[in-house]
This record gives sequence, C-alpha cells and structure tokens, in this order.
Amino acid sequence: MKVLIYNEFVHESHEGPAKDMYPRGMHMAISEGLQKIDDSLEFSYATLEDHKDVITKEKLADTDVLVWWGHMRHHLVDDDVVTLICEAVNQGMGLVVLHSGHESKVFRRLMGTRCGVEWYERQDHGRIWILDPTHPIAQGVPNPLEIEAEETYAEPFTVPTPDELIGVTWWQGGEIFRGMSVYHRGFGKIFYFHPGHETLPSYYNPGVIRAIDNGIHYVAPRVRVDEVTSHHIEPHEPKY
Amino acid sequence: MKVLIYNEFVHESHEGPAKDMYPRGMHMAISEGLQKIDDSLEFSYATLEDHKDVITKEKLADTDVLVWWGHMRHHLVDDDVVTLICEAVNQGMGLVVLHSGHESKVFRRLMGTRCGVEWYERQDHGRIWILDPTHPIAQGVPNPLEIEAEETYAEPFTVPTPDELIGVTWWQGGEIFRGMSVYHRGFGKIFYFHPGHETLPSYYNPGVIRAIDNGIHYVAPRVRVDEVTSHHIEPHEPKY
Amino acid sequence: MKVLIYNEFVHESHEGPAKDMYPRGMHMAISEGLQKIDDSLEFSYATLEDHKDVITKEKLADTDVLVWWGHMRHHLVDDDVVTLICEAVNQGMGLVVLHSGHESKVFRRLMGTRCGVEWYERQDHGRIWILDPTHPIAQGVPNPLEIEAEETYAEPFTVPTPDELIGVTWWQGGEIFRGMSVYHRGFGKIFYFHPGHETLPSYYNPGVIRAIDNGIHYVAPRVRVDEVTSHHIEPHEPKY
Amino acid sequence: MKVLIYNEFVHESHEGPAKDMYPRGMHMAISEGLQKIDDSLEFSYATLEDHKDVITKEKLADTDVLVWWGHMRHHLVDDDVVTLICEAVNQGMGLVVLHSGHESKVFRRLMGTRCGVEWYERQDHGRIWILDPTHPIAQGVPNPLEIEAEETYAEPFTVPTPDELIGVTWWQGGEIFRGMSVYHRGFGKIFYFHPGHETLPSYYNPGVIRAIDNGIHYVAPRVRVDEVTSHHIEPHEPKY
Repeated sequence: MKVLIYNEFVHESHEGPAKDMYPRGMHMAISEGLQKIDDSLEFSYATLEDHKDVITKEKLADTDVLVWWGHMRHHLVDDDVVTLICEAVNQGMGLVVLHSGHESKVFRRLMGTRCGVEWYERQDHGRIWILDPTHPIAQGVPNPLEIEAEETYAEPFTVPTPDELIGVTWWQGGEIFRGMSVYHRGFGKIFYFHPGHETLPSYYNPGVIRAIDNGIHYVAPRVRVDEVTSHHIEPHEPKY
Repeated sequence: MKVLIYNEFVHESHEGPAKDMYPRGMHMAISEGLQKIDDSLEFSYATLEDHKDVITKEKLADTDVLVWWGHMRHHLVDDDVVTLICEAVNQGMGLVVLHSGHESKVFRRLMGTRCGVEWYERQDHGRIWILDPTHPIAQGVPNPLEIEAEETYAEPFTVPTPDELIGVTWWQGGEIFRGMSVYHRGFGKIFYFHPGHETLPSYYNPGVIRAIDNGIHYVAPRVRVDEVTSHHIEPHEPKY
Repeated sequence: MKVLIYNEFVHESHEGPAKDMYPRGMHMAISEGLQKIDDSLEFSYATLEDHKDVITKEKLADTDVLVWWGHMRHHLVDDDVVTLICEAVNQGMGLVVLHSGHESKVFRRLMGTRCGVEWYERQDHGRIWILDPTHPIAQGVPNPLEIEAEETYAEPFTVPTPDELIGVTWWQGGEIFRGMSVYHRGFGKIFYFHPGHETLPSYYNPGVIRAIDNGIHYVAPRVRVDEVTSHHIEPHEPKY
Repeated sequence: MKVLIYNEFVHESHEGPAKDMYPRGMHMAISEGLQKIDDSLEFSYATLEDHKDVITKEKLADTDVLVWWGHMRHHLVDDDVVTLICEAVNQGMGLVVLHSGHESKVFRRLMGTRCGVEWYERQDHGRIWILDPTHPIAQGVPNPLEIEAEETYAEPFTVPTPDELIGVTWWQGGEIFRGMSVYHRGFGKIFYFHPGHETLPSYYNPGVIRAIDNGIHYVAPRVRVDEVTSHHIEPHEPKY
C-alpha cells in the first residue's frame, strides 16, 4: 500500500509552538504513528515547497492513497497539480483529507461546495461519537474518541451530505461537527477527518492514528481506471 | 419567479434538423411550453454568444432558477461566468441542468466528478420510471413518462450518488440511466433531467415540460445568503 | 389539515410534576402552542385509555398527520391499532414521533430496528444544530435551537440512517444525538423530534413548536393510496 | 463463515418444472454453486417444514449469514422465528434475501414497508446494470449481468431508499427494478438480490452466484452484540 503524505510544512518549519509539537513535521508524526501499528504502508512525502516536482501524474498513478494536510497556504498549491489529483481520485485513487484540508483546493473541487466551517481556537475538548460502530473505519477506535484539545470546527459545514457519516464531534464550547465522513467521487473515495491543529498533540493520539489507518485502507482503490470520460457505445457495450 | 434559460443556441441557429425541430431555439420552446401551464414564471435568456454580457453577478442575484442547455460548445463557456454560477448555486440559486448539460463546466464543477455517460444516438424509445411518486417533481408527471425518441444516455453515469433519485430511464436498446435526480450543494439545489436532444421533440412532450416546471419550483431558493465562507466565531455564535 | 394527537396521558393525569408542568396534558399544550402560530390545523386527540376506540381505520383515513407521544406504556398500545397506523403511513399519512415515542411500537415497526438510545435524566441543556438551513422544517426555527432543560438522549441511536438528517443535538453532559430527522416509508414520511420530557417545559418553547408545525406540514400527504401491495401487471401497465 | 440457507422448498419437492430445474432444491443449487468458487463457506439448511426446529436462537447466534428464499408460503413461517431473525440481524447477523423473499415476513419487518412490486411472469430477459463498479459486491460480476430469463419484478418497489443501490435491472418488457441493494438495520446488513424464479436457471448463472458470494461476505458481521436496547447511562459512559 503506497501512501503519499502532503504536508504544507510551513508552521513546523520555523521555530515556534508548531515545531515544538511536531519537530520533524506533521507528515513525519503521522507516518511514524501509522508505522507503529501497520507495517503494510510504504510512505513518501510532499510539501508545499516541492509539491510541483513530487506530485506528478506518474507519481499519482503509483500512489494508492494520498493524505492531505494544508492550512494557510492553500492558495499557493498549483492548480495543475490540483487538477491531476482530482482526476486521480475520480479514477480510483484514495484520498484522506485532514483538519484544515477542508478548505484545500483539492477538497473543495471534489465537493463542489465552499466547504466552510464556523471555527474558533480555544484548545477545547472534543469528543467524536461514532454513529456506526460497524463501519470499517470505526474498528479499534474508542467510542467516543476523546480529543483532549483541538481547534473547534463547527456546523454549518458547507459540504454535500456525506455518503457515509461515521462520526460527529461534540465540543466543550457548545458546538457539533460532522468531522468524520466518507464521500464517493467517481471511482474514488475520500475520508475527511477533522483532528490535527498544528500546535496540538492530536497526531500522538492512538485513536486518531487508528482512524487514519483504517481510513487509508477503506479508501484504497478496489478498482482503478486509466480515464473517466463519456464513451460513444453501440447498444449493450459498456465500458467499465 | 425569475427564470433565466441558457441555451448554447448553435445547432438551431443554422439550417438543419435542429432548426427544423426548434425554429426559435430550444430556450423558446422550453419557455413557451412552461408558460402554457404556469403563469408564475418570468423568463430571460442567454446564449453562448451573449452569455458573458448577460450572466453577470447582478443578474444571477436577481435570478431564482437558472436552466442550462449546452452541448458541443461547453469549452467556450467563460470560466469566470462558471465561477459566478457555482457561487450563486452555493448561495441558494436553483439550477436545472438539461440533457447534454451533464458535461457542462457548471455541472461538472458542482458535482466534483467527470459526469461522463455511455451514449449512442439511435432515436430510441425511453421510458422514465418514477421511483418516488410522492416527490414534488413527480406530481402530474405520467408514470412512466414515455419519451418517444431520444439520444440514449446510459450508466455508468459518473456522478456522485444523487441526494434524491426521482426517476430511472429504461431504454429500448437495453440500457438504464439515472436521468432524473436532485443534488444539494451548499444552499442550492440542482435538478438534472436528461431529455432534450436538439433534433428530437422532447420539449414538446407535456410530461417533460411538467417535470421541468416542477423542478424549477423545487430548486427555487427558500433561503439565500450573500456569501458562503468560513467564519471565525465566538462559541455559541453561529452565522447562518 | 387534520391532525390527530396521541398522548399516552398517564404522567399528567395524576398529581405530580408532570401535571404541574402540563395541567391539561401534553397533547393540549402541543395543540395550543400550534394554534397560536397556525390556524390551518384542525385537532383531534387520543390517549392510551381511549386509543382503541378513537384510532380506527376510518379515523386514520380522515387524518393527514398523526402526532405520537408515548413513554412508559408503549406495551399497552393495541397491536391491531399499531398495524392500522403503520399501514396508513405506508399509504401516505404523515407521522410525527416525539421524544420517548422513539421506542413506541409504531416507530420501531416502521424503522425495522430497536430504536434504542443511551439516556439519563439530569435536566441538561440541549442545543439543536440545524445541518441544513434550507430544509422546510428548519424555516423560522432558531439555529441553534436552545432547549433549556431536557432528558438526554444520546448515540448510538439504533435507527436506520435517516433519509433527511436535519439537526443534531449537543448536550451539556457531553453527548450528541440525531434527534431531528425524517424517514420515508412507502408513500408516507415520518418526522422524529426528540424534545418533550413530561416534567420539562419544551412544549412551551416557541422554537420547538415551530419545528413541530413545520414537521406536520412537511410530512402531510401529497399522494395517498388506498392500498400498497404487489400487483400482477401486464408489461407497461404500472399501478401507481 | 457459517451460512444458513432457508429455502421454502415446496415448489421443488413435487414433480414439475421447479423440480426439473432444481432437482435437489434451490438451497442445494445455491450452495453447490457457491462451493465451486469459495471454500470458506460452511453450509447448513432449513426448509419451511423444519424451520421451527432449525432456526433457533442458538442456531442464529452461531450463524454469520442467513440466506432466505421463500415464495408462496410466507404466511406459514412462524412469527416467533421471524422475531428471532430480526433480532439477530439487529445484533449483527448478515442477511441475504433472494427473489420473492422481498415479500417475506422477515424482509418486510426489517424494512418497515410493504415491499410490494409490480410483476409478471413471461421469462423475459433481464440485464442488471452495476451503478457502482467499485462496490465489493460488484467485484467479478459482469457489468451488465445478463439474466437470460426471469420473472419480471418492477418499480414501484415499496421499500425504503436503499442505503447502497448497487444495481438496477433493465427488463426486456419495458420495466426497471432496484433489485441489487444493501440496507443497514442496527448492527446488521441486508443484501437484496432479485434473481431466482423457481423454474428458471438463474442459480446456475456464474455471475449470479458470484454476486451472492460477494453479498455473503459483505453482510457478514464485523461487530456483533448480544442485545440491542436502550441503556440508562451516566454521562460519558457509552455502551457500544
């Protein structure tokens, strides 16, 4: 299973609380967490700085699941790379979108909506309640999954109705959030999962890592096609 | 109820079978059909030729429902106009996408998928079966709705799972198609309805016109906002 | 619009906190609240004591929407009456299920599941967040809808995935609940809405009453049939 | 994987076309077909005649997936057995409902609807179009799956909207049918699949057998609980 992690890697590349929390970057914290519980994953990485070189059509064709963390520099992500990624998802590549990736160009283009949230940053306690304990992504994840401190993302979350609503987060401050969902787009699946503020320890939380690991396996491609388009057919002659 | 009909208006603007079928253009055939059964609609029109002048931010703000018919010239529709339309839908404007509009930039951007179909053109008989006879769009529409001759659009239709699957079409040639569906995007709703090949008489079919009329009313905005975005809030202070 | 309210009417028929809160019974508090904002509703009533006499096949055929409140005496509701109600819903009658009605025979039979909740009674504050501000049931309802004190119902709520998930409740105690949902069954629709503990003032809350009023209109029948069954047909000869 | 097949076994137990087609009964034809492609399944059987003895609470607790074929004798199935089965499904047991099982007590009780179809018997050609080629149940199943001759089941099919609509059948006679769907009920999943008239060879069709095999694996329990009910909890103390 080939997993490519994109991390904007701006916050943690400078001295400050993000680097204090994730000294080698969030991408490394995520992959190290995953490697402890799952030896089937083979990782590679991209950052804002090198993403145009790394995330090529060939690389995406050789990637099972792309994991995306971005925040303040969404606008600097190259539009052609975004197009390649959205095509790859529609052809079957899996995508895991974390935290502030909800406003990334990739996620917004795949959703067709603004993907806005109400938010504040108070390090509130969050508690993710699993609605479907039988879902593959929920296996081994505590119910509820306690997040000791997080940035609060709240409804209305302007996304389409999720194809699979796995969990809803309760917030100490009084809000709720559909922050653990799966969307289907073409031959691909997308897992959105909200924990992961850059100065908070969510990626050291074993339940969070378990959910990300389950999510990677869940969105991994079962069927992958080279192209999705319209086809002129003769009657009774399907293409997929 | 202010309805703006976009018609590419290339096929019917030249001598040939499309002009023979729809001498004043498909947009006029649609609006004339609607006016016979519904005097609450006020129409305006845009074509490929004038769409950049007509479809402005101000015009969209003053439009309840946009109806879209395009075919061979999707690529010539201005990208900034597409952006304005997608924003307007997310803010609450209704959208009705007809026939080959499934591959329009507008529809594809709102869906996040390729929106491809399998297709052939043999003037086959189609029969639209209503799955939910209680749906507002189905009221007064015969079940099944017989389409005497149409271009065949068939599955796999690479769209997200519809939020509301109203009808599925049976084709004489042996295919089926989810061609009567509603999708929700932000504060807006989109009705996709497949009849309407440029050389065939579907827009003179009273059941087709009834469904389009019902669709216009169904996707008309109940709530409309000036902007959809993320908001920084204080706890307990929602924006919508 | 003919609305029949069933209220178990055991708690409030004896001296105690329920009678103190709802001296004439919850059914009367609900109908009085609704009448203040909606003069289109014509009410009749049934209680556990008289339900076998009142809720007949003829009465149901003359009812647009049945509102159901029951709690400790679900098991005493007559099975034949339950069968009649479930048939009427499948034929198009609307149903509004309130609070502890989630465990009523009627609701459980229509859902096909146990409809269990996690619960405690501490008069906690609840806050219902509207996920879809454009939904007809949300119109005029504050977002969030604050419930000053309620019995806590929490996930996992063992119901099928709602056809329309309108609101999710945040609880002071740390839980969440899908307590504002619509389910479709046959030609009928069911609105489940969780506020309404017998000793607490939720039915004096204008937002709660507004949601119930909207819900009644939303589930009211658009199409109603005399019977739902299988039909032997000739090809091309549908029955609905 | 322990699979229990219930077959009414009335048609094929007497001389006639059903026995000619399935000499040892449809249950044996199904299990023999499955065994050829999947050696992980361990079968046991029940028929109308012995179902009260075989389908006990203990047997269901030791069954991963129950496969159900019934037709003219639905009314003779014991109500207590039906109750046990519905409880087992809600606790996590998988269920595969075939063909005329759509009107079985078990399926109707789990759906909460009448589960009626329009039907005729003309041995028409059916063609099952897969809507989601990535679904686990679709793997290895031809798209379309051609059914050379079947009893026609047609819309409106009065079931709830499927949680997962995998395939829709095109019929030679002019109808369509949502005959390949998954429903979730509590901790259990139900796969409905329409082929299987007693005098026609569908259970010798490798694509049909492949879909049933995939369906068995898809609905097999991932999580199973001893009881589904409401729980009185202390705050923050979930039960599942």
